[in-house]
Amino acid sequence: MHTDGPDPALPIAVFDSGVGGLTVLHECLVSLPEEDYVYLGDDARFPYGARSAEDLSECVRRNTAFLLDRGAKLIVIACNSAAGAGIEPARELAAAGGVEVVAVIEPEAEIAAAITESGRVGVLATPATVAGGAYLRALGRQHRELTVTQVAAPDLAAIIQRGFPFSEAVVETVRSYCAPLKRARVDTVILGCTHYPLVRPMLQRFLGREVRLVTAGHAVAAGAQRILEAEGLESSNEKEGEYRFICTGDAAAFRELGTRFLQMPLGEVERVELAD
Amino acid sequence: MHTDGPDPALPIAVFDSGVGGLTVLHECLVSLPEEDYVYLGDDARFPYGARSAEDLSECVRRNTAFLLDRGAKLIVIACNSAAGAGIEPARELAAAGGVEVVAVIEPEAEIAAAITESGRVGVLATPATVAGGAYLRALGRQHRELTVTQVAAPDLAAIIQRGFPFSEAVVETVRSYCAPLKRARVDTVILGCTHYPLVRPMLQRFLGREVRLVTAGHAVAAGAQRILEAEGLESSNEKEGEYRFICTGDAAAFRELGTRFLQMPLGEVERVELAD
Repeated sequence: MHTDGPDPALPIAVFDSGVGGLTVLHECLVSLPEEDYVYLGDDARFPYGARSAEDLSECVRRNTAFLLDRGAKLIVIACNSAAGAGIEPARELAAAGGVEVVAVIEPEAEIAAAITESGRVGVLATPATVAGGAYLRALGRQHRELTVTQVAAPDLAAIIQRGFPFSEAVVETVRSYCAPLKRARVDTVILGCTHYPLVRPMLQRFLGREVRLVTAGHAVAAGAQRILEAEGLESSNEKEGEYRFICTGDAAAFRELGTRFLQMPLGEVERVELAD
Repeated sequence: MHTDGPDPALPIAVFDSGVGGLTVLHECLVSLPEEDYVYLGDDARFPYGARSAEDLSECVRRNTAFLLDRGAKLIVIACNSAAGAGIEPARELAAAGGVEVVAVIEPEAEIAAAITESGRVGVLATPATVAGGAYLRALGRQHRELTVTQVAAPDLAAIIQRGFPFSEAVVETVRSYCAPLKRARVDTVILGCTHYPLVRPMLQRFLGREVRLVTAGHAVAAGAQRILEAEGLESSNEKEGEYRFICTGDAAAFRELGTRFLQMPLGEVERVELAD
């Protein structure tokens, strides 16, 4: 237990470039319902997946600083593009207050390596994540011979963020992203963007029943739970905690889409300006 | 192989009282993508869950007759309220043409009995399904001592059919349906209506991580696949089959909601009048 760590009464802070990270928040709510949460969707800068590594490091730093300033006992980076650019800026800022950081990417790599039978693993991710190679490095650390097929999906997060217009054009776009994964005969596909679980049914249809889809949410929630227990940071709430939502773009749009994604009324969504 | 069975080139026909059965159709599309499908949503008579057993038998008979008349090689009853009232009217009509019938309820009972550790199983279903006792009978056939807690959820299918308004009132309603299941400390809950998988995240949150939710879709798809293989009725399509959607109510509303549920453009939705 940190003697100088954060106050256990503070919320868990989660951030993403938009609503996608709500898939990770959802798993945290299932595992740790008594905790308070604050969620930041940096939708003014959406999509992160088209940004440079330098830009993304700056997003990670800025979001983390903002959330620590508001008060947080744990930082959850629920955006693969951001995590792929490196979580060190968040770790450095958070360490000063004894706050730990949990992030996507490593958990999915561990799960994929554990469950693939053929060793042929696919990664579907944003251009930034694919170019940065974070999944290749994470999968390379798994002590197992793996053949990895990466596919950059430039439009998929934006399609989901726009609210699922399941037109023929969208279906053809997503089908084209799945084609190289099918050709490579992968048996496991990492959904390397927190938006993608929202179109899991469509992806499963294109990839086939036998392909296992790996997402980060549950593993990230388990990681958060381990840290809170180890550090004695669990909430003393006796019932469901409080959830607050903050965005940097259009609050009404965020609220409408987020309510649908999370299957929960978001209540008031606060809009903040985060200076570049 | 039936020498006088249906033509393998005919579609698989699926029906429900609305869009809920699309969760079952989705699993069929994943397992058997080359098949052609016709889906009937009897939304003019929605909700089935408030109807008498006599009414429901008539719905089953009428829908099956309509679909056989259009041409079908297999009938899938993707509505628990209808299946709970008895699938004999469908079996009798279909048998004349050598067509088999697959239905929900029995598959979920088999899965639930196989996976519960404590033997305490919950059933969340419509008033018609709960009152008819079909799940109690199906669970009673599983050669295992089970304690079953049934909860009738009069409004849940309608909430979903209206398109998920995740208001505080909806959340409180759903929470109240989950409360008796939590009190009974069930470790497994059958989602006894094909609409319910669409609010799985919300249900999982209220019931907790440790409770397993059982749905029919995958098992029904597997049942359909077994029959087609055993009877030599597989499609000879070499790529994805064609899907047609028919409803009895508002075609535009069905199309909009169904596209979102299925994550696929439904295309033209045909409206038909089915005489009482």
